[in-house]
Formats: sequence, C-alpha cells, structure tokens
Amino acid sequence: MTQKQISPAVKNRLPRYYRYLSELLKNERYKISSGELSKLMAVTASQIRQDLNCFGGFGQQGYGYNIEQLHEEIGRILGVKRGFSAVIAGTGSLGATLAKSGIFSKRGICLLALFDNDPEVIGKKIAGFTVADIRYAAAYCREHKIDIAALTLPKEEAKPVADMFAAAGVRGFWNFSNMELKIDSPGVKVENIHMGDSLMMLCLQLNN
Amino acid sequence: MTQKQISPAVKNRLPRYYRYLSELLKNERYKISSGELSKLMAVTASQIRQDLNCFGGFGQQGYGYNIEQLHEEIGRILGVKRGFSAVIAGTGSLGATLAKSGIFSKRGICLLALFDNDPEVIGKKIAGFTVADIRYAAAYCREHKIDIAALTLPKEEAKPVADMFAAAGVRGFWNFSNMELKIDSPGVKVENIHMGDSLMMLCLQLNN
Repeated sequence: MTQKQISPAVKNRLPRYYRYLSELLKNERYKISSGELSKLMAVTASQIRQDLNCFGGFGQQGYGYNIEQLHEEIGRILGVKRGFSAVIAGTGSLGATLAKSGIFSKRGICLLALFDNDPEVIGKKIAGFTVADIRYAAAYCREHKIDIAALTLPKEEAKPVADMFAAAGVRGFWNFSNMELKIDSPGVKVENIHMGDSLMMLCLQLNN
Repeated sequence: MTQKQISPAVKNRLPRYYRYLSELLKNERYKISSGELSKLMAVTASQIRQDLNCFGGFGQQGYGYNIEQLHEEIGRILGVKRGFSAVIAGTGSLGATLAKSGIFSKRGICLLALFDNDPEVIGKKIAGFTVADIRYAAAYCREHKIDIAALTLPKEEAKPVADMFAAAGVRGFWNFSNMELKIDSPGVKVENIHMGDSLMMLCLQLNN
C-alpha cells in the first residue's frame, strides 16, 4: 500500500507507533498482539488494528504483529533511513539541550552544526560542536545541503533567520520560537512546538 | 457566555490568542481589527470572528476588538489569575531550561521547587532554586498544595514519580518524559510534549 493512502490521522500517530516499536525492539521483542500493544500505548486494540492494517501483512490472526517489519515500514514512511541533516539556530539553554539530547541521532537525523549571533557564544563548545556565527549559516547550509533547521531563538529573530535558511535550501523548520512561522518558499514544512501554549492548555483543563 | 459553551476546537486555540493579545498589549496596542489579527496570526479573519464571538461584546463593527478586555477574558478561562503553583521533577538539561526560562511566571504560574533523585545534583542551585531530594517531594506538594508537576525525567521514572505526585494532590502533569502517562486519580489532567514525535512529523512531511 502506498503512502498516499494513509490518512492524516493515522500519519499523526506514526511517530508514536515508531517510538513504542523501537522500545520493544530494544527489549528484544519480535512479536506483539494488538491487545498488548493497546495496553502499552493506552489506545484501543481496534484502533491499533485499524491503523496498522494500512501497512498490511504484518499482523497474523492469533500470532500478532512482526515488530521488526512494522518498525521498518513505519520508519520508511517517516524517512528515518533518509539520513536527513540538521542544524540548530540559537544556542541558548533550549538549543543546547537539544544538541546534547541525542534527539536527532536517535531518529536517524545527522546534527551537523550549531549557530548563534552572540559574540560571547560563537566559538564556544556545546555537545562537541563549536558554535558558528549565524552569518555563515546560509553558505554552510547550501554547501552541506541541510534539510532541517531547529529554531531555538527569540521570536523577533525567528522570521528573518528562517527566511535566510529557506533561501539556502533548507526545507524543514522545527520551530520553538513561540510564534507562527510563515515561509513563502515552495516545499517548505514547519513543525511548531509551542511549549507555553501546551502549559496554558494544562491550566485550562485544571481551571474547568 | 459561560465556559461550557466554548467548543474544544476553540479552546485549543485560546493559548495562541492569549499569546498574541499579550504581545499586542506589551506593545501598547488597545484595539485591533479581525483583519489585522488574522494577518498576525496567519489564520483567516472569519475564523477569528467566529472564535472571538464566543466571548461576545468585545468586537464592534468598524472599530475592532478591545484587546485588554479580550485578553482578560481569555486569561480568566485559561486560569491565568488563579495563581497555579508548580514544581519541576528532573533537573537535567531540559528541566533546568524550563526553570530558567520564566515560562511559568509569564503565565501567572508560581514555580516553587525543583526535585531530583541524583545525589550529585541535590543541593545544587538552578535558576535560584536549591534542588531538593525527590523523596521529600510528596510531603512538599501536600504542604504547599502544588497544582502542577513538570516531568522532565527519564521515561522509566515518569510513572512512579507521577503516581507519587498524584497521591500528594497534584492534579496537573506537564509531561516531557516521552511516554504516555496514565494516572488513575480523579481530576488528574496530563498535557504531553513529545518533542521526538514532533521531529518525526517534520521528517514525514519532508519525506512526502
């Protein structure tokens, strides 16, 4: 079954499946029933069967899912094996946290450089990287064909920096800058993490 | 109009409205048209009119919205004035980043304590807080009637720590631990931030 036939709702759940399947493989599990996966992931077994049916052939009645095959197939859709490359713009506390966390490499993404505009920070070492001057970021991204830029910088700086990256061929923006990012370049994708909004949603729920 | 009549979809957008209205007030703006707000937030003006109609009386034809009143009303729904209290469990790089960021205080939430289980870290200062032993967290939360616990700890530790907090009366969990948190206590709310899943969604979009 081709990718185009997977619904957006199922797509949204793929990273979560991938995360649990990775964990199971790490624990040397190779088969799992929809019932067990359902308990683990706190979703209904019928939801799981429905979702995973999209990939066909990996689940057998009374036998369960082949974790390795399913992991491989979902990883293929997510582009894990594509070897995307990434840079981080903004090496404050959050940018440094991302650089140190291994969050990129765990997902097959190669973090290649860290950029900042603060002369106090440029040249310093973070997580094994020497922080480079943001002025050289465009040339770097063109030369190394960078796919993804994580934006962990103040919201005032996010838009011009993102435009600069987009002009240098970067197509994926992982945006932590607490503002909606609109980039008018073909093929550009933005994924926002608004941590403050998430905290507010928690407050709203508590306030009800 | 009472809170109960606001749809879940509108509720989900409230933190975003609140963020933009806060920004406008900071820049000493007091009125705004749906058209201008629409451009700023990158949503359609009709969506904005529809959403903000829920709060009634703050928009006037040809005059625009009263930013202060709207900000106040949305803040009330979000519980900003409730003065929620919070602690952070896990003072690794991410926990420390949250403590330093002012993300709580900016939203009227009082961050009161940081906890960890690492003897190397307990007693150290982070963002003006002395990191306390997680063993004392339950007693502390009971005594100070803590509303929210941010969980920035490894996923293996998240569940037992969350259960301990819930038993001590904490009702709100801001979960960064990269696992689905299921807490069987009445009134408990969980808001997950799965950063890795967000990064994978970006890859999926780039891979299409």
